[in-house]
Amino acid sequence: MDKFMVIGERIHCISPAIRNAIADRDLEPIFKRAKEQLDAGAHYLDVNIGPAEKDGEEVMQWIVQAIQSEFDNVPLVLDTANKKAIEAGIKVYDRSKGKPIVNSADAGDRIDNINLAAANDAMTIALCAKDGIPRDNDERMMFCQEMLERGMEAGMDPEDMLFDPLFLVIKGMQEKQVEVLEAIQMISEMGLKSTGGLSNVSNGAPKALRPTMDSVMVAMSIQCGLTSAIVNPCDKILMDTIKTCDIILGKTLYADSYLEL
Amino acid sequence: MDKFMVIGERIHCISPAIRNAIADRDLEPIFKRAKEQLDAGAHYLDVNIGPAEKDGEEVMQWIVQAIQSEFDNVPLVLDTANKKAIEAGIKVYDRSKGKPIVNSADAGDRIDNINLAAANDAMTIALCAKDGIPRDNDERMMFCQEMLERGMEAGMDPEDMLFDPLFLVIKGMQEKQVEVLEAIQMISEMGLKSTGGLSNVSNGAPKALRPTMDSVMVAMSIQCGLTSAIVNPCDKILMDTIKTCDIILGKTLYADSYLEL
Repeated sequence: MDKFMVIGERIHCISPAIRNAIADRDLEPIFKRAKEQLDAGAHYLDVNIGPAEKDGEEVMQWIVQAIQSEFDNVPLVLDTANKKAIEAGIKVYDRSKGKPIVNSADAGDRIDNINLAAANDAMTIALCAKDGIPRDNDERMMFCQEMLERGMEAGMDPEDMLFDPLFLVIKGMQEKQVEVLEAIQMISEMGLKSTGGLSNVSNGAPKALRPTMDSVMVAMSIQCGLTSAIVNPCDKILMDTIKTCDIILGKTLYADSYLEL
Repeated sequence: MDKFMVIGERIHCISPAIRNAIADRDLEPIFKRAKEQLDAGAHYLDVNIGPAEKDGEEVMQWIVQAIQSEFDNVPLVLDTANKKAIEAGIKVYDRSKGKPIVNSADAGDRIDNINLAAANDAMTIALCAKDGIPRDNDERMMFCQEMLERGMEAGMDPEDMLFDPLFLVIKGMQEKQVEVLEAIQMISEMGLKSTGGLSNVSNGAPKALRPTMDSVMVAMSIQCGLTSAIVNPCDKILMDTIKTCDIILGKTLYADSYLEL
């Protein structure tokens, strides 16, 4: 059984530091966040360059090559609405540590990203949603099925699809949390891999609560079969939780020092 | 759906402070630990007076009456191998906040404690074990079934039985953890309540790791359907985890202040 896969979320153009770094082609802030996340135990790094309508292809190639050459070909998640930028990034991507991941496809307007991933022998994150939040798990699982079929028709190995149940904010959508856990269980029982933007869960909650909320949700989700998440790996409480889940599920051998490994 | 039930474990004669307090009939150290646990959010307090072969009946009556009258008839778990002491304790026990719980029955020599509980309209913790650690979940569930039948024959409501899957130490029995989680799931799917001595999980691990290990195990166990645990409620990380599980499962309404409630 594979260890839980941690995708670091912190190279994201929503952060002014990263947005400016991209605009100025300044690698230092980008390398800083890449290093912090890798030091904290991230396996993949998400690289979100925003809509990147103008110079997306050039920016994605620049950032992929820079990060991979600085950090021993760390595997990356290519995250932008600009399809040409994703394809350009894949062209220069080194696969020695893992395939590129396209972030993201959905069951609506972005379903073609499954074909993009298939055509480029990439993985993809497949959001179980169409227009906004799925109404219920019947919808979630229908979207999951649609995307799975699309991927298989395009020749993808289902192992290369990470289905995202869409984590929802507790503050405001508390009554939906059990549904998300049940969706993860169903995805897992279909033998499929999963991932998701875990920090949605604690959005809007007091800052001091967020690591606890995220950690508890990740432990419950992993027990339901979640195989990956997009997280802030610099949240030590969260990473300690993920490592301990791997210990309990026998994916890592116990050692007194396991949290430092 | 009921909130997760926290049974405080800290009034236990294995602690020298409590052992001496019992020997000297000194209530102060006992009240101190009772108060700490109740302030931290314990719902029941376990009162372990040891084998208590000599003066068990008198000791149990003394301690039950003292704690209940000091703390607004807090419900108690009566914990000793001395059956007469348990019966004596139940005689003076005030049920206004909850039935007494007999700790514990098992599927071996202690199966009669189920009848003792039934005869006294008490609840019982029913350990899914006979001689030592169950070999596998076939054994665990066979023991569970045997005790359930014994209880029902004696006229007990199955709701009054808390089945204990027997949490095992990670350091040394790492490969058994998934089995314990599966046992909890099976007990839950039978519609039965469960509990267990959670801190077994982290026994022997470095002290700094124990709250993380216990917390992650409790979150995964609650996701499998665990309804109660015997814990140290003064472990804030553990209690925060339990409260957050109740939030995610919709057993408590979310408020920004929920950890302080």
